[in-house]
Amino acid sequence: MASIALNPSSDTPIYKQLADGIGSLIKRQVLRPGDKLPPTRELAGQLGLNRTTISAAYAALDELGLISGKVGRGSFVAERHPVIASGTSPAETEPALNSASFVSSRPAAVDFPLEQFRRFTREVADSPEAANILQLGSSRGYAPLRRYLLDEAMAAGVAGPSDDLIITNGCQQALDLIAHVFADPGISIAVEDPVYHGMLRAFARSGADMFGVPVDDAGIDVVAFEAILERHRPKLVAITPSFQNPTGATLSLNRRQRIVALADRFDCTVVEIDIYSPLRYVGEALPTLKELSPAGNVLLLRSYSKVCFPGLRVGWAIGPSALIARLAEAKEISDLHSDQLSQAVLLRFAQSGELDKHLLRTREIGKQRLEAVLGACERYLPPGTRWTRPEGGMSLWVELPPPLTADALLNKVQVRGVDFLPGRHFATRNSHARGLRISFGGLSPAEIQGGIQILGESAAFEMNALLSAGGREPLPALV
Amino acid sequence: MASIALNPSSDTPIYKQLADGIGSLIKRQVLRPGDKLPPTRELAGQLGLNRTTISAAYAALDELGLISGKVGRGSFVAERHPVIASGTSPAETEPALNSASFVSSRPAAVDFPLEQFRRFTREVADSPEAANILQLGSSRGYAPLRRYLLDEAMAAGVAGPSDDLIITNGCQQALDLIAHVFADPGISIAVEDPVYHGMLRAFARSGADMFGVPVDDAGIDVVAFEAILERHRPKLVAITPSFQNPTGATLSLNRRQRIVALADRFDCTVVEIDIYSPLRYVGEALPTLKELSPAGNVLLLRSYSKVCFPGLRVGWAIGPSALIARLAEAKEISDLHSDQLSQAVLLRFAQSGELDKHLLRTREIGKQRLEAVLGACERYLPPGTRWTRPEGGMSLWVELPPPLTADALLNKVQVRGVDFLPGRHFATRNSHARGLRISFGGLSPAEIQGGIQILGESAAFEMNALLSAGGREPLPALV
Repeated sequence: MASIALNPSSDTPIYKQLADGIGSLIKRQVLRPGDKLPPTRELAGQLGLNRTTISAAYAALDELGLISGKVGRGSFVAERHPVIASGTSPAETEPALNSASFVSSRPAAVDFPLEQFRRFTREVADSPEAANILQLGSSRGYAPLRRYLLDEAMAAGVAGPSDDLIITNGCQQALDLIAHVFADPGISIAVEDPVYHGMLRAFARSGADMFGVPVDDAGIDVVAFEAILERHRPKLVAITPSFQNPTGATLSLNRRQRIVALADRFDCTVVEIDIYSPLRYVGEALPTLKELSPAGNVLLLRSYSKVCFPGLRVGWAIGPSALIARLAEAKEISDLHSDQLSQAVLLRFAQSGELDKHLLRTREIGKQRLEAVLGACERYLPPGTRWTRPEGGMSLWVELPPPLTADALLNKVQVRGVDFLPGRHFATRNSHARGLRISFGGLSPAEIQGGIQILGESAAFEMNALLSAGGREPLPALV
Repeated sequence: MASIALNPSSDTPIYKQLADGIGSLIKRQVLRPGDKLPPTRELAGQLGLNRTTISAAYAALDELGLISGKVGRGSFVAERHPVIASGTSPAETEPALNSASFVSSRPAAVDFPLEQFRRFTREVADSPEAANILQLGSSRGYAPLRRYLLDEAMAAGVAGPSDDLIITNGCQQALDLIAHVFADPGISIAVEDPVYHGMLRAFARSGADMFGVPVDDAGIDVVAFEAILERHRPKLVAITPSFQNPTGATLSLNRRQRIVALADRFDCTVVEIDIYSPLRYVGEALPTLKELSPAGNVLLLRSYSKVCFPGLRVGWAIGPSALIARLAEAKEISDLHSDQLSQAVLLRFAQSGELDKHLLRTREIGKQRLEAVLGACERYLPPGTRWTRPEGGMSLWVELPPPLTADALLNKVQVRGVDFLPGRHFATRNSHARGLRISFGGLSPAEIQGGIQILGESAAFEMNALLSAGGREPLPALV
């Protein structure tokens, strides 16, 4: 709520501005179905407004079906409001043609292999193993899944005999555990720039100093990385070599080799975020940094969240056993261990071969999505716009031509039902004011195309307006 | 591994000492089935031993069936070794008569309502809601469960209109999130002493200064609490009013009232850990601190882990909405959100009324366990021993008569198949060298009785030995 900007000198009444602001938070899923809104008295105090203003805003949102109030219990974000219905479950309601949320880097619910999930869940529940699953477990994870994943990694040459594995609540928790183990105040960490905001927040919470290494179409700039290694001696570098979030960039083989050599030379632990690589739609797979540095200090993070079910929080980390032991200790303090029911279900999903079949289908659909987004960018984005050309994953990165900013464009497209995350969410030092992330993983090709069309038309319109307004400004003297 | 004490001047060969030490870690479930042991080369380096010594220790453990090795992959704790088989699943193998692990504060797998779990899991998987459960969720938890729990709490008068609720991965994660929100370095926190070690570790990780308030049979000492409030101005106090871990103590109503008044006066947020209160076997229920201070700063932590399934990590926190919002922000950084499959299964379990039925049965069995442990303490513990008399929960606290220490006794009873956690695990400043926790929640009345008998006999024997040895020491001059 603190992030809602109210302008007292605007023509729009404050209650309307507030309702719009909250509505936008709901549409962008910052506020989620069932979330409780602050009591009117409390929000009035926080924002320095009259309580009736808050009540009027809530009433307006209620009329729109975005929130619902219960006497004596407060107001809640509605369980099934129009935005959520189209956002989370394309199967159930047909979204309006011109509506596309490029905000969330997640798979489409319509692609979920529900029948398989149902079968494996039944099997797990009915198995004699159920009592063990329900009992207190190990902070390293459900042993049969851990062993399966370690065996697979060893068979694939990704893990060696001195490696071990820990299950985490998705990749996000692995980043948080790493922060607990490494990121003391004053410690330097090298990250990509732009970079996934959830990683920034996990490392920043521990008080580490972060240094961003610029990312281009072939991943991080190795020369800039070496300069940061020399100047700041980071203890840790976090890299997403394949289909990086937010750029979709893939590190070339040559850069991969140089990065592990540099990290080795500077005794810098590499955190390799490898959660998108099974989603390669075109081109050839490249070896992980872990494979390129089998005896080195590389910690490989993987997850089932991006490749099948984000609602089941199961990821894992593979690395030198001494480091895994420290992560396990941190994990025990954080939440004892991960939920075991989902671990057991996902183990069956993987062991049965159904995960591989699902990945085949996902890559087919993903290829169509990727073609749709790249084709639409080519067709609709105005001249001077640049964008990355990912070979997989869920996101690409757009750089708007100056003087257009991502925030200005966002304001214009949101009223037309299109949404995205502006570059500032992914910024370390560079503000990325003209950058924006397009996450296309959860949309149909038609939705993608419609959304990019609106984005392109609005960008072109705004550019013209800005340039003609700029043309009326006095020109600076030429020097 | 670092905790294994090796004595080079002992008659026992080092390899045997090491094997015993690792075996003890396995029996005490510090090392769990499937855990990977360090490679021999690595452990040799860590312990400053020859690699063949490590290999000999591993070979000895392998022969005992405690670990198993795979060529090129290292050694792992065996999936089904004799200790685990009796410890985790009394239903499957009958434990040896004289074996009792009082180590873990958790329910018995034999009591799990497996049929109900199976039914509800099938229902959830087959429901149309499955796609939503599998999609990315809210950091506040699965909305239907969150709403159900908040409604229940409001109906029971435990939550008020300005309260909100967040789902956590069991109570442990709630403690960790609280640590993230409150426990900056230099911040003072008041805790019980003795206190649950997992709480100490979560707060200590954030660098807070902890001050222990002594606990007796009626809970924390209010006068000592007031002194700490005055001297150290703690921002937070964490209290388990009912069946505290490790003492089993319950705060009297009078103390509850005085504590919330004091916390209010000193502007100290109260974290109320209320995970055992449904396990009351005798006596009358008392109001929570939250109920006694409806408008105050009390954060109530609850969980399904102790009352039904520890392997499903679902707990929750209820408190002022502004505080819940800060916890939700911390939760998003920690792991985005909790696994939704277990949340949906537990919601059905609660809504169907089956949870209440399960609690009725659990309290009946719990009462028998409590009678067994109190009866056995009365019968077998030597004169001078003191112990608490809990009215519910899973643990009681024993204070051995001087000069006997808990560690000395532990050494003696482990070889007879009895295990417990010595007091030092629960210590803030006082070392609790003579204290020990007896967790009886996972054992049958017969196992409890057999275990306490061994404990009592060993304690009596050691006391005699120590006292007669002490008699041979020169006496100090009388002054």
